[in-house]
Amino acid sequence: MPEAPPGITRSLARLISRSTPSDIPPEAFHQARRSVLNWLGAALGGCRDASVSHAIAMAGEFSGPPQATVIGHAARMDSLNAAMVNGISGNILDFDDTHAHIVLHPSASITCALFALSEIRPIDGRTLLHALVLGIELESRLLDPRTASYRFAWSPTTSVASLGAAAACAFALGLDERQVTWALGIAATQAGGLRETGGSMSKAFNAGNAARSGLAAALLAARGFTGAATAIEGPKGFIAAFGEARDPSFLVEGWGREWQVLMNTYKPFPCGIVTHAVIDGCLQLQAEGVDPGRIRSVQLAVHPMAMRLTGREAPSNPLEAKLSLFHVAAAALLRGRVGVKEFHPDSIDDPDILQMRARVSAKVDDGFATDEADVVLVLDDGRTLARHVDHALGSLVRPMSDAALEAKFIDLADGVLPRTDADALAAQAWSIDRLQDASTVIRASAGLSGRG
Amino acid sequence: MPEAPPGITRSLARLISRSTPSDIPPEAFHQARRSVLNWLGAALGGCRDASVSHAIAMAGEFSGPPQATVIGHAARMDSLNAAMVNGISGNILDFDDTHAHIVLHPSASITCALFALSEIRPIDGRTLLHALVLGIELESRLLDPRTASYRFAWSPTTSVASLGAAAACAFALGLDERQVTWALGIAATQAGGLRETGGSMSKAFNAGNAARSGLAAALLAARGFTGAATAIEGPKGFIAAFGEARDPSFLVEGWGREWQVLMNTYKPFPCGIVTHAVIDGCLQLQAEGVDPGRIRSVQLAVHPMAMRLTGREAPSNPLEAKLSLFHVAAAALLRGRVGVKEFHPDSIDDPDILQMRARVSAKVDDGFATDEADVVLVLDDGRTLARHVDHALGSLVRPMSDAALEAKFIDLADGVLPRTDADALAAQAWSIDRLQDASTVIRASAGLSGRG
Repeated sequence: MPEAPPGITRSLARLISRSTPSDIPPEAFHQARRSVLNWLGAALGGCRDASVSHAIAMAGEFSGPPQATVIGHAARMDSLNAAMVNGISGNILDFDDTHAHIVLHPSASITCALFALSEIRPIDGRTLLHALVLGIELESRLLDPRTASYRFAWSPTTSVASLGAAAACAFALGLDERQVTWALGIAATQAGGLRETGGSMSKAFNAGNAARSGLAAALLAARGFTGAATAIEGPKGFIAAFGEARDPSFLVEGWGREWQVLMNTYKPFPCGIVTHAVIDGCLQLQAEGVDPGRIRSVQLAVHPMAMRLTGREAPSNPLEAKLSLFHVAAAALLRGRVGVKEFHPDSIDDPDILQMRARVSAKVDDGFATDEADVVLVLDDGRTLARHVDHALGSLVRPMSDAALEAKFIDLADGVLPRTDADALAAQAWSIDRLQDASTVIRASAGLSGRG
Repeated sequence: MPEAPPGITRSLARLISRSTPSDIPPEAFHQARRSVLNWLGAALGGCRDASVSHAIAMAGEFSGPPQATVIGHAARMDSLNAAMVNGISGNILDFDDTHAHIVLHPSASITCALFALSEIRPIDGRTLLHALVLGIELESRLLDPRTASYRFAWSPTTSVASLGAAAACAFALGLDERQVTWALGIAATQAGGLRETGGSMSKAFNAGNAARSGLAAALLAARGFTGAATAIEGPKGFIAAFGEARDPSFLVEGWGREWQVLMNTYKPFPCGIVTHAVIDGCLQLQAEGVDPGRIRSVQLAVHPMAMRLTGREAPSNPLEAKLSLFHVAAAALLRGRVGVKEFHPDSIDDPDILQMRARVSAKVDDGFATDEADVVLVLDDGRTLARHVDHALGSLVRPMSDAALEAKFIDLADGVLPRTDADALAAQAWSIDRLQDASTVIRASAGLSGRG
């Protein structure tokens, strides 16, 4: 293991504290706007989940002043609790953004932390986007295999999310280099989040908890609370705890040359990203008019990671179904769509889906990319229909358009916001960098019940 | 790596949810009382620290109803924030209890989580002690080398503290087996705490954060929020994330046969436990009348872990000084005591101590136990005085008596509670299991300012 060069945490703090808007090119600002819109949609779609109700019931007993919006709910909460609850809403549907090359959902914790902060400190829309770009940059670089390799049990997204949220909030607060260092240190020591949570409400809680932790870290540092100045690279620090260092200097190398937010992609389907190539292939075949009743077997070939994370043959609840290649293939072939409804309990117990699911088999192809899949249908007359997906819809090569992203947002807001309000909120999100007060956007997401 | 047997988390939840007072022998209850008194003293001694003021300032902005006592402060907070702040107070002086065989300060997070809970849910004193015994049991068994080995970067105490606090609070809330399982899962995914925080305020924050996390986990589980049923032993769970499993079945083996709380010890000195044998030896020599002015050199020999954790030659602040063999040896020889005052900034900059510190050298003896040390003084006339400490004062072999523990408590409460109130609080702590409402004790620790 090469020795970490001294002062990486401090160097990062310097880069973050000295960043200026001119560092950020227009396309990075635009990608940040897309990330915000996507996150808001995911959170509006998720905010009626039982996990969110339970979290609101728990946090409500302890909440302080009604500072901050709880997405889709009338009751306001203090900003720390709101960050936690909104983090659950934004992640529970598995409809997050995803870094094209790293298993990372970068906005999950940063965005809700920043919005919760914007309701107690003046933050303009441009600064919020700028902070989001910086937070995504840090998270991506931390998880980049050139920096370090991490133990599999850690959920990558949430292991770095308190650090990303802290970096973003520290920048938005205008903290100085020393304070940003402390914020990163306080965030690093709160880092966590186990992959074992998959299939339980705790998976989404990881995102909310990291948002709250990162926001608290920045606010503590602003008050003078100290953190370890070598929290990331030190011999008893973040990298040493979570895995094995490769070259931690990669964390700062070429910072600002090419922003990682440009690698951000958006999911067309509300489930594990590694299932998307299979869904894409199944939907293409379905759109060509295959009669589901004539399918005798469905043979999938996927990247090893897709099998490892989503090779669940018989999911028993919605959260497990989102991580099941078998369920999503069956739903796509039968219904011609894989939306939020395809993960409702009645879809998971749907006898037609269960019957189709039993016909699905899956194998690993070591040569595949994570967004690549083969789908082969064998029909009752012995005919086979095959589709190879090189890059799933929503990948960097086949990104969702702005219009498709907005349509996804409108679809997810349905039932929480009246259509006119959803349209207005989307328009606000697209032009958030012209807002003097970024919190305008999050306040508009409280929804119908927010008017009570 | 042996495969973890199935259902360890669930088995633990069963043991915890079904525990009855008759499982706990009187000596375990008494040791739990000693742990409570020791923790209260440490927190009263620590509650004026700048770290606590900063944490109060941060949390105060977000605190909900004034449900819970902030030790030594008039302002009350919601229970989650109070658990966090009191956890910092209780740990910042490094005056914790310590497991005799494992590097674990077991009460650090459990006690403040339980007291914070006792102010919002009815908990009698006996149940609080019982819950503490169970929480300590879980933490000790998790860290036991027979269960697993963990990566060095993780702070042992805080890595398991959210789980210990969750187990204790779940028991005190009377949760059923399924809910306790969820609580352990929600706690496990919040587990963290880096050793790199040593020397910064974040070290004590780890204890407070774990207390808040564990309490929140139990309260979320009580509301129906689900956690992973295999959070501890699963292939993507706690043990796999933090280290390497040895025999996770040790976690439940012989549960209740011999309670780990009986291994708990209490520090006579407010600094890293591995420095205590050196302090003990220096104090013994000092008490025999050595003139500090005649000491030419001080030669220490210590366990490798003592050197690794506390081989800091030139500490620059109080938190570093608590983890410096060099500072504590110098202070003990010069002042004949190592109390809270020996870690004030003016003691660390004291020219006499600096001069003595420069004469100290230390080496490792691989054959030593962690509570063993050699101290050799070379005087200006060439004479040497040597002392070998087999077991430091405060170790399991030479435990602090109840009277010595109470004296430590009274000493620490000085300046926060009037003497008569401190005496009354100590009496309450000794008889807490006769209280219908355990929160009586924590409410009495608000102190003088609490009457404003």
